[in-house]
Amino acid sequence: MKLHIGVLGPHACDATQYALGVEVGRCIAEAGAVLFCGGLDGMMRAAAEGAKSAGGQTVAILPGTDKTEANEFMDIAIPSGLGAYRNALLVRSCDAVIAVHGAYGTLSELAFGLRLKVPVVGLNTWEVCRDGQPDPGIHVAHSAKEAVSLAVQLGGRK
Amino acid sequence: MKLHIGVLGPHACDATQYALGVEVGRCIAEAGAVLFCGGLDGMMRAAAEGAKSAGGQTVAILPGTDKTEANEFMDIAIPSGLGAYRNALLVRSCDAVIAVHGAYGTLSELAFGLRLKVPVVGLNTWEVCRDGQPDPGIHVAHSAKEAVSLAVQLGGRK
Amino acid sequence: MKLHIGVLGPHACDATQYALGVEVGRCIAEAGAVLFCGGLDGMMRAAAEGAKSAGGQTVAILPGTDKTEANEFMDIAIPSGLGAYRNALLVRSCDAVIAVHGAYGTLSELAFGLRLKVPVVGLNTWEVCRDGQPDPGIHVAHSAKEAVSLAVQLGGRK
Amino acid sequence: MKLHIGVLGPHACDATQYALGVEVGRCIAEAGAVLFCGGLDGMMRAAAEGAKSAGGQTVAILPGTDKTEANEFMDIAIPSGLGAYRNALLVRSCDAVIAVHGAYGTLSELAFGLRLKVPVVGLNTWEVCRDGQPDPGIHVAHSAKEAVSLAVQLGGRK
Repeated sequence: MKLHIGVLGPHACDATQYALGVEVGRCIAEAGAVLFCGGLDGMMRAAAEGAKSAGGQTVAILPGTDKTEANEFMDIAIPSGLGAYRNALLVRSCDAVIAVHGAYGTLSELAFGLRLKVPVVGLNTWEVCRDGQPDPGIHVAHSAKEAVSLAVQLGGRK
Repeated sequence: MKLHIGVLGPHACDATQYALGVEVGRCIAEAGAVLFCGGLDGMMRAAAEGAKSAGGQTVAILPGTDKTEANEFMDIAIPSGLGAYRNALLVRSCDAVIAVHGAYGTLSELAFGLRLKVPVVGLNTWEVCRDGQPDPGIHVAHSAKEAVSLAVQLGGRK
Repeated sequence: MKLHIGVLGPHACDATQYALGVEVGRCIAEAGAVLFCGGLDGMMRAAAEGAKSAGGQTVAILPGTDKTEANEFMDIAIPSGLGAYRNALLVRSCDAVIAVHGAYGTLSELAFGLRLKVPVVGLNTWEVCRDGQPDPGIHVAHSAKEAVSLAVQLGGRK
Repeated sequence: MKLHIGVLGPHACDATQYALGVEVGRCIAEAGAVLFCGGLDGMMRAAAEGAKSAGGQTVAILPGTDKTEANEFMDIAIPSGLGAYRNALLVRSCDAVIAVHGAYGTLSELAFGLRLKVPVVGLNTWEVCRDGQPDPGIHVAHSAKEAVSLAVQLGGRK
């Protein structure tokens, strides 16, 4: 089975962030992996657009119960009806996840990744700290290419 | 987006039931729909084998947390970690479902279909009754071809 | 820990059905068990009213995210945010459940009880059949007292 | 209905941490609130022991399907069968939560609290940061008394 790589990120993003998401999605498709995301707008749409531009396959894990809420770049949509629990389902579905920017929803996904031992790569996203020290569980990347390369490597090893 | 058609059925089945499952899966792929199932053995494997034999696409909604539990005919696997709740997630994911034979797990999926207004087609499966009368919510089919044709029609109308 | 006995039933019910629900709830409290229900209106409210009238304790497993949706007879409310999945959570929470009348929601709970091996007692509710024969998994009762007595006995043995 | 206050914390804790958990639980009961926790060992047991020592009421949101996994200080136990999703259910169930120390499970609960707008009080726990700045969503307390006082105030206002 192909690797399932998730992209976690915010509903709303500016043009620079959107372009970064497109590049992450493109790299995932080029690596031969299936892109998973939340299926809605913003970073989720960006990553799916990028994956489709490179001929990849895309799966949406939606919070609501209506498949038509998915953006136009999703091949398959799971209208989970799980509300906020869907953040955990998305992470569960992946061999590795890449958090790109993001608000509290992304934070909860990133925390679930750490909890569930799904490798987490961070790209301009949250830091979590104990006693002033950043937790080593988040693998920090500095470019789309590096993030996807790390995710593929860590997800394949899982 | 392509129709998502689910096949619900038991973990264990005899050769006749397995052959019926394969035919249901094949018809789903020939109708251009994506096959969804529980991803494990028995009827789930049969339907996936049938769909792949006709070049279709297959998605597993697994109860556990390990993607490798999916049978060899699944293209995409969601290791939901939801245990028995995954029966409801499977039904939620579909535009229509076809219950073929089945035990209590299938009964719970069929009941969830009725509850969630996901069209349910029955093929040699449970009957649910009030005051001695079978509930009209289950659309009874008598062959694989008829079952898939009904499911595609009802799922497309949803 | 006290037994947890669930009452499953419809949102809307007539005066006769409501009175039956009150009696079921009263008997549960008199048996020293904690009443679990969906926490909303109709049969859920009836059972909770009955339990409180006998000094019992009541727990609501709500589908939504707002505790204040619970009826006025609930001591504790779990605003699960699980939507339809909450039907399964309610059954999971109980040592035994009693289905009283009910529509598709109750059917899905009853099916989940069978699936999860939580003893199910039926009082004027659904019948589930295979090959024209009612499934023996539902223990049929003919009065509130008999239903609660059966549920307490089966739930205590679990 | 009484306030529902959750205590989030690790399975394993040393004697000093356990004593802090007992004090937090005691203060919750003295404030007239119901204590919610994960129902297992360590900080969860400590908080429940403290609440019972002051005559309070306690509810366990368990990850597994067996009510008997709850520690001996729980009055009511919900064997959710939700695995890691139960972390989100626990937070959902509360008017406010107090995170005391904790590992990745606690981090995921704390993140869900922020996501779901359930007020989060932190006592010697995780910090979450953006661009080097701690997120203001976690209300930092320095003693059990202060933590409970904050949680009761924030939870009551919700």
